[in-house]
Amino acid sequence: MRLFLLDESFHGQNPYEISGPDAHYLADVLRLPIGQSIMARDMSSQLWSLKLKEIRKGVCIVETRKAEQASKGTDALPEYQDLLPITLFQCLTRPKKLEQIVRQATEIGVSRIVLVRSRYSCTEKIRPERLDAQIKEAIQQSGSLVPTAIEGPVDIKDIKPEPCGTALFFHQTSLPGQHSLQEATCNLKDPVSLLIGPEGGLDDSECSILRSHSFEPVLLDTNILRAETAAVYGIAVVQSALQNRSRKGNNYC
Amino acid sequence: MRLFLLDESFHGQNPYEISGPDAHYLADVLRLPIGQSIMARDMSSQLWSLKLKEIRKGVCIVETRKAEQASKGTDALPEYQDLLPITLFQCLTRPKKLEQIVRQATEIGVSRIVLVRSRYSCTEKIRPERLDAQIKEAIQQSGSLVPTAIEGPVDIKDIKPEPCGTALFFHQTSLPGQHSLQEATCNLKDPVSLLIGPEGGLDDSECSILRSHSFEPVLLDTNILRAETAAVYGIAVVQSALQNRSRKGNNYC
Repeated sequence: MRLFLLDESFHGQNPYEISGPDAHYLADVLRLPIGQSIMARDMSSQLWSLKLKEIRKGVCIVETRKAEQASKGTDALPEYQDLLPITLFQCLTRPKKLEQIVRQATEIGVSRIVLVRSRYSCTEKIRPERLDAQIKEAIQQSGSLVPTAIEGPVDIKDIKPEPCGTALFFHQTSLPGQHSLQEATCNLKDPVSLLIGPEGGLDDSECSILRSHSFEPVLLDTNILRAETAAVYGIAVVQSALQNRSRKGNNYC
Repeated sequence: MRLFLLDESFHGQNPYEISGPDAHYLADVLRLPIGQSIMARDMSSQLWSLKLKEIRKGVCIVETRKAEQASKGTDALPEYQDLLPITLFQCLTRPKKLEQIVRQATEIGVSRIVLVRSRYSCTEKIRPERLDAQIKEAIQQSGSLVPTAIEGPVDIKDIKPEPCGTALFFHQTSLPGQHSLQEATCNLKDPVSLLIGPEGGLDDSECSILRSHSFEPVLLDTNILRAETAAVYGIAVVQSALQNRSRKGNNYC
């Protein structure tokens, strides 16, 4: 399901006129037929059903109707909307890669992305507006009901994991007391905080700082991955374990 | 660890002269210092240690020495080389996305990629040489010891999963008898075959065909993912479960 994001000019008007790039998105990208409805979310996270009435000179006129908050079993909504919270602490990579990571993390439903500066992280200038655009596009395309937030960059020594949850950091060399990814995912408590290092890795003092902040080291038992692959890999394994536990209350294995 | 791929002109010469793009890769991309060694693999999968002796007019002259086949505990080689076989059956997407999927699947260590034509798969022309280049680059960058092979495209009705292993296909709507990803990964047998649909999804008759070919349907309990995200997501969860089982002989949960 795709989710349309209503901007700050919407405050319950019915009918409502959508113009500019958003109208282009509905009319030309999604090719929404007249009479068809699409789910939308406004700035206060209220869900709306928008029914396309007319397209006039590049303006889409929609009928708006408040939708029930997402709940299991409503068939206008996907069944898999109750994604448990994951915060991604992402060390800075090159801007193009960072955009890809932000887009894919949003698609998967990460709730919060914190950009992190570390010794070997990329120092190229970040363009926050491009990252925001990636988030918006990813939410619309994936129908994610998670309003992904992004913040930072902050220094690695200043990051704090989400309280009361599990915090993990990934790396690819041996550290004492580290777990395999699968072991670490056995006892996950949400919200999960997940730190992904930069291409150049984390240095020893950074690993110590993270451990003193309750991040547990996890060895990725795979090849050396680029940052953008490591991010999706890690989020996937964590989310899949987290969703399974929440849905079943136990583990099948 | 990075792994250099020796082409068909190498058959054990010592010293050996590397020219063209491969010399550029060693000298300018990796910036390998004189006297430093790098691991390499030849066309017959034999591992070699190459020691850079000299760079002369863009040609790298290396001393070659047969290296022991990869085995645990050799510290010139990564510890995580014994990745269990995964075959990715990837329905055709747009060429750029397909290149990204092939690169990332190779990085993670997928052993075989089979391109698949299905009803909603992309019909744009594939350029096999570009996919081959992605594989080569990904192997060199990630140090993957898995010689990823690519083949196809084949029609979805003609695909056969790897014999004696688990075969899964992912989709995002309810099908009778489907498993969650986590349930499906509990009883994985390698080699694992994993089919990822195209952006437009699989139709009912395609799902029936896959089931008749012993592919089990798995519901991805997440947002609707683009094909390139779904591929990495699925491979990650499968590989992580597979590696954990093989390493520990059981599951920690």
